[in-house]
Amino acid sequence: MSGRKTIGTIKMRNRQVTDSLKGLGTRIYDQIEDRKFPWVDIKSRTSQNIKMDEKLGQYVLGPKTIKRSAHNRRNLKPLSQILWVSTVGKELLEQNKTSTLRDVFYMAQGEGTEIQFAEQSESDDIITDLETVLNAAREDLHIYPKERSAIFGDLTVEYTSPPGWEGQKRNTALDPNGTVIGPPMTSAEFVKCQADKLIVVEKHAMFTRFIEEGAYKKFNALLISSEGQAPRATRKLIRRLSTELDLPVMILTDGDPWGISIASVIIHGSVNCAHLRDLNTPEAVWAGIYASDIVKYKLPTVRMTDRTMQKRGSDVEKLDKLAQFFDTPAFKNTVWQKEIALYEKLKRKCELEAFSRYGLSFVVDKYLKDKIKEIGFS
Amino acid sequence: MSGRKTIGTIKMRNRQVTDSLKGLGTRIYDQIEDRKFPWVDIKSRTSQNIKMDEKLGQYVLGPKTIKRSAHNRRNLKPLSQILWVSTVGKELLEQNKTSTLRDVFYMAQGEGTEIQFAEQSESDDIITDLETVLNAAREDLHIYPKERSAIFGDLTVEYTSPPGWEGQKRNTALDPNGTVIGPPMTSAEFVKCQADKLIVVEKHAMFTRFIEEGAYKKFNALLISSEGQAPRATRKLIRRLSTELDLPVMILTDGDPWGISIASVIIHGSVNCAHLRDLNTPEAVWAGIYASDIVKYKLPTVRMTDRTMQKRGSDVEKLDKLAQFFDTPAFKNTVWQKEIALYEKLKRKCELEAFSRYGLSFVVDKYLKDKIKEIGFS
Repeated sequence: MSGRKTIGTIKMRNRQVTDSLKGLGTRIYDQIEDRKFPWVDIKSRTSQNIKMDEKLGQYVLGPKTIKRSAHNRRNLKPLSQILWVSTVGKELLEQNKTSTLRDVFYMAQGEGTEIQFAEQSESDDIITDLETVLNAAREDLHIYPKERSAIFGDLTVEYTSPPGWEGQKRNTALDPNGTVIGPPMTSAEFVKCQADKLIVVEKHAMFTRFIEEGAYKKFNALLISSEGQAPRATRKLIRRLSTELDLPVMILTDGDPWGISIASVIIHGSVNCAHLRDLNTPEAVWAGIYASDIVKYKLPTVRMTDRTMQKRGSDVEKLDKLAQFFDTPAFKNTVWQKEIALYEKLKRKCELEAFSRYGLSFVVDKYLKDKIKEIGFS
Repeated sequence: MSGRKTIGTIKMRNRQVTDSLKGLGTRIYDQIEDRKFPWVDIKSRTSQNIKMDEKLGQYVLGPKTIKRSAHNRRNLKPLSQILWVSTVGKELLEQNKTSTLRDVFYMAQGEGTEIQFAEQSESDDIITDLETVLNAAREDLHIYPKERSAIFGDLTVEYTSPPGWEGQKRNTALDPNGTVIGPPMTSAEFVKCQADKLIVVEKHAMFTRFIEEGAYKKFNALLISSEGQAPRATRKLIRRLSTELDLPVMILTDGDPWGISIASVIIHGSVNCAHLRDLNTPEAVWAGIYASDIVKYKLPTVRMTDRTMQKRGSDVEKLDKLAQFFDTPAFKNTVWQKEIALYEKLKRKCELEAFSRYGLSFVVDKYLKDKIKEIGFS
């Protein structure tokens, strides 16, 4: 039962999926060579075509199939989109890299790409179509969901809990998944740290990217994924890394008011935690995405929501609150005031994944490299 | 800068907090011996008393203080609650165990405890009061926030990604935080597994508890935290552990319709993924919390929401849908039909943390032990 060695399952799966992708491409070529309009068959996913297969013990699709043929002009766009996403999947498989649904949406906006998706839901749908065509999950194409708050890098900790683990040492660079910032990590002592800086990123997908691209090595950095508003345990760990190891801390967030707020809470604390010390890191530096980065890197953006689009909690409202918060002499001429003013002018926002329009490596090789120099961390 | 050894910070902090707790207790005793009504001073957390300290670079509380004295009868209850939570914190520190805000709420419902909280928001508030009194975070008292989808146990994997990690082996029992089920874990090959079963739990706090209480050793089990509806990567990993290693899989969820649904999706798949194979695990067993467990263990419950309390998506509505789904000959006389029928009769629900009313170890030493026998896994 247990103890069976299964080396090969994943390799086999990768080969199967690569073969399916190649098969799809070959079929399209053959159709064109046969002077036919290219087409694919996609099983219908409407509720009438979904049934519970009692023998398999799972939901399955029935026999109803939809033909997407270039013969019908309306199908031209989705058909091209499916084939483009297939190419992305094949490249990810070949390079052994990963991406997310959101990345794929932005990759379509790269220069020289004529594939366009109006919004992410459109590319999400196309990816589901491709899953159906290939009978393979998007994870098989290395398109992954997001995970949560975690740490990675050349830091050796000594656990003080749970019972039985006291005194055990562990290096957080051992596991490319990242180590969950759970109670044991939060209550660990720091034994040794070879890194000379800490990079906190709002998005876990970016954290994964930074590991894949070797950013921790290139910049000798520890990495922490805050996954949105950093949990208290994560904020405390950042504080400890800053004070106990004197690590300079930089924070990368989405280019929107919520991202600025995430950075500000890590640095200045939150109203809810005004009664506590040691949760915030005043020395940490918000390192973008700045409004000026949006201009500089020509990043794809969307309009900030305002009261006409969203009654409460709109982007513009949040930005106003931030502008108010930073409107004190202490913040005069700081990056906060400058960039918030520019955001107020632009009224547009963008996400960290937006750099994917220049390919998956760009955010590390260009943006992160420039940014570390810009804030004086290298 | 880096490389500094800081062993001792956490130990020192534990000692400080234990001392603060003892100090609080001693003050109360002294007040009583002095024939005074016992009291504590708590800094006010109203917005008027919160300000930005520009020198510290963080939010702080101003000088306004509230005195909670037993002299005023209305203070008697919150004062006792604060002292009771202090005792819980002290015990957690001494035993080096962790709990959550929710656990504390349920622990108050233990037999012999006259401390009562009407709802969790009340105990949450009291814990914040105690944080203010002690100037220590709840994490210092070992009361932690939840984390996300992860795996733990005696399973050795071999990574196939990201680039540079191919071929590296790792045992998932090395890290008591649990290993994030990120892309590398999802695409890892299984090399060796000493465990003979897999326990999936809906709540990450319970996953942490199972590690702390040594449940993985006691029952020779791998543990997976699904953290609510299991992400697809997690469902796929469960499937692989079931099929590639022939591991029997049991699923523990909250005792409510949403918990049943989480188990059902792991077992039968979801409508959204009807076009995919290999994401669900038909052989997995839903192992509770059953409605009959609520009765058997006299668990604290709350009333299921219905249309009068919640217009859409109420518990009762969800339960009706589940009853409908399982109303087929294939499920005749199964635990699904029986337990859903009993839930329909009870119209009450409960959470996994509800076992905390019998202490933190009960859920492993009694419930889990009995359940493994009941479903025939031992």
